[in-house]
Amino acid sequence: MQYMPVTQSMFLIAETRDQPMHVGGLQLFIPREGQTAEELAEELHESFVAATDIQETFLKRPASPANLAGYTAWQLAHDIDFDYHVRRAILPRPGEIKNLLQYVSLNHGALLDRSRPMWEVHIIEGLADGRVALYTKVHHSLVDGVTALRMLQRTLTTDPDDRTGTAFWDNEILRRRKKKPRAPKPQKSLLSKVTGAVGSAVGIADDLVGIAPAAAKVAVTGVLDRDFVAPLQQAPNTLLNVPIGSARRFAAQDWPTDRLRDAARRHHITFNDVLIAMCSGALRRYLDDNDGLPDDSLTACLPVSLHSEGSGDGNSITAILVRMATDIADPADRLREITASTTSAKIVVRGLKPLQSLALGAANVWPLAFAPVPGFVDFTPRGFNLMISSVPGPEEVQYWNGAQLDGCYPVSIPMEGLAMNITITTVGGKANFGITGARAQLPRLQRILDHLETALTELEEIEPIHLAQ
Amino acid sequence: MQYMPVTQSMFLIAETRDQPMHVGGLQLFIPREGQTAEELAEELHESFVAATDIQETFLKRPASPANLAGYTAWQLAHDIDFDYHVRRAILPRPGEIKNLLQYVSLNHGALLDRSRPMWEVHIIEGLADGRVALYTKVHHSLVDGVTALRMLQRTLTTDPDDRTGTAFWDNEILRRRKKKPRAPKPQKSLLSKVTGAVGSAVGIADDLVGIAPAAAKVAVTGVLDRDFVAPLQQAPNTLLNVPIGSARRFAAQDWPTDRLRDAARRHHITFNDVLIAMCSGALRRYLDDNDGLPDDSLTACLPVSLHSEGSGDGNSITAILVRMATDIADPADRLREITASTTSAKIVVRGLKPLQSLALGAANVWPLAFAPVPGFVDFTPRGFNLMISSVPGPEEVQYWNGAQLDGCYPVSIPMEGLAMNITITTVGGKANFGITGARAQLPRLQRILDHLETALTELEEIEPIHLAQ
Repeated sequence: MQYMPVTQSMFLIAETRDQPMHVGGLQLFIPREGQTAEELAEELHESFVAATDIQETFLKRPASPANLAGYTAWQLAHDIDFDYHVRRAILPRPGEIKNLLQYVSLNHGALLDRSRPMWEVHIIEGLADGRVALYTKVHHSLVDGVTALRMLQRTLTTDPDDRTGTAFWDNEILRRRKKKPRAPKPQKSLLSKVTGAVGSAVGIADDLVGIAPAAAKVAVTGVLDRDFVAPLQQAPNTLLNVPIGSARRFAAQDWPTDRLRDAARRHHITFNDVLIAMCSGALRRYLDDNDGLPDDSLTACLPVSLHSEGSGDGNSITAILVRMATDIADPADRLREITASTTSAKIVVRGLKPLQSLALGAANVWPLAFAPVPGFVDFTPRGFNLMISSVPGPEEVQYWNGAQLDGCYPVSIPMEGLAMNITITTVGGKANFGITGARAQLPRLQRILDHLETALTELEEIEPIHLAQ
Repeated sequence: MQYMPVTQSMFLIAETRDQPMHVGGLQLFIPREGQTAEELAEELHESFVAATDIQETFLKRPASPANLAGYTAWQLAHDIDFDYHVRRAILPRPGEIKNLLQYVSLNHGALLDRSRPMWEVHIIEGLADGRVALYTKVHHSLVDGVTALRMLQRTLTTDPDDRTGTAFWDNEILRRRKKKPRAPKPQKSLLSKVTGAVGSAVGIADDLVGIAPAAAKVAVTGVLDRDFVAPLQQAPNTLLNVPIGSARRFAAQDWPTDRLRDAARRHHITFNDVLIAMCSGALRRYLDDNDGLPDDSLTACLPVSLHSEGSGDGNSITAILVRMATDIADPADRLREITASTTSAKIVVRGLKPLQSLALGAANVWPLAFAPVPGFVDFTPRGFNLMISSVPGPEEVQYWNGAQLDGCYPVSIPMEGLAMNITITTVGGKANFGITGARAQLPRLQRILDHLETALTELEEIEPIHLAQ
């Protein structure tokens, strides 16, 4: 048995039937020249179930007994029941993207089985445009978003003639790829780049020995430390901040990174500020559509990766809080306010030691551990209204056995009191937005995609802002 | 809000992520002359989502707050999100029955969302033989097996030219069918027929006001009553009686009821005795295959319906315990022992007043309420090893808009400590066995289908037994 650090067990402890704690990824592939979607799906399936040397992450399950005192250890499964973990599906007609998003929505609400390794992959055919989709679901106690993206990239290559594609849980791929010229590594988180984020955080998780509720203990660690900068403030009540059911909605769309970079250059702001400004404008309109725009600004929680060279798979992350300025109607004024907020939030992280950064992240999110308690969500002041994550990947076009990756959308975790999650991955020249929401609580979620486009257009059209700094 | 009686809330209280408490049904339809599977699936879907006047059972969800003090009330939803509740699916190639059973296995392990009405229907295409499947999933707090079958039958008719088929949640169908010659009603439970079961039990559920754990309270009621016949005895430990994960296996097959009736006539035993003898022989072989046949006989728990004319939808059920005689190798001796056991068990029920019958059922199953507590399953003596339910339906061939019902298999509930459930429906001249098992704990579950055939053949070949009575 392996020791389970608090940064992993907190995701098991916080999980309920209404708040599944798995992250997901939706990848779209274009079959190579002369190959049908059916043939690509068969090739993926054959290759996936052929793996015999499975990476440890994909063998891990919580050791039992598992219900009362929390989780403190991992067990490794001896083998994998591939019929269970690798699933085939064909979309119902007409095989539009909305059918695919519906499939992901319906499956993302279902809990993973804790008595077996906590992941699933769905190979999905039936898209009328001939592409094949892969929907991957992994428990958040095993991976964070950066790691998940890194894992999905592992089996991809920039060489369209490469035919050594295998499953991302296959140890063979790691050995084989090491002998070849290295595939480009994912860039460091854009946010962490800007903040000069903490490179020595690897292994810190192991220092934090957990008791239930684990997250609360981390929060206490933070508060008792003299150097700790407490970020808690009150965010307004919105329709994003309500108890939720387990059913989900999923919306996804991509924008060219070049277009976003041009907007960043125009205003002398970061790429990440552009992402946040798009989300801010879109949320302002979405809430207004639904008669739910609060007088005060929304606050977003932005996870910051602490991954560095040589760190293994797993969770390594902290978080900062940013004012979204959704109370400001004028797009230029709103952008100024957002940029001022991201700048000051960065300073908080930069001034902290590694352990403190981790504790800060946990302090920002610790109320989540109590969210499943009835009444807590409705009556407790909250520090933020939603989480927005940005996960950067490689810039080059990627292939799996010659099939081109044509989209890589994150499917993340709404929680009690946090009915919407926005995650953005940048891969192969595209910024892929994945918006995951609680189904009953967030009607017409697809419309937020139009609002994101509108917000970006605004950034492109307003006069360049002049920051007072 | 509606009051929720203990016989309903106990299924919500006992539910965990590893022990979903929904019942399921798998129906197969042959498209009518000249109709493709695709057309039938479209017709079913259009008709299902067109319903505007929804029956109350399909609007019910537990009132919140829902986690701490148990469930004591139902709320009615205002409308139905049909995109969520009515799902379309196409099976992966080659579209064999095993692909369909795999689909049902994977979906039957997923919990229903408690924040919305607790049911789903999946319209499934892609069977190579051209049939269309309907997989229906309803929470056990809303219906028992008899009610579920009655509901599925509601929209069917014996008239192949009838084109008024609609959804079984459509109030329209009840009104329309009342004006026409009545469709044949399901027969009374065969077991309850034999035992002369309690016709006046309707409304009893409302007398039993629940506190958590509800089932335990009912058990106490029973034990304190002077007239109560306590059936608890110790059943052996087997591989059926272990903690389980949420993943499922599902096996299904049908036999002609005429063949089973001939066997019953041959031995002067009931139809139900034949079902139990088949299960006994099959379980003996299955356990032996897996090196797990205990020295003592398995005990089965048989739910007995208390439904009577005019009772509404809902749960109304008790249970008896039967010795399966799996310790006896000789088929004739085994059959004698089984018949003796079912006869004496019947007397227990016949001698009881209605409220006592209900309490008896609850007393037999009350340890289930505690099964999710770690260690309970492994260290607590148990009263029985598995549940076997028989749910009789109409004898005539049934149609939906001219499409013939060609199989109606129950998909039931394995639980902590009860890794296998066998349910049999008799409809249109077929006895449909549905065997639902915990995936990780019950390997090669499909083989039990061959063992059922072997056990039936034995009954047909041995000399008629002579009962000493």
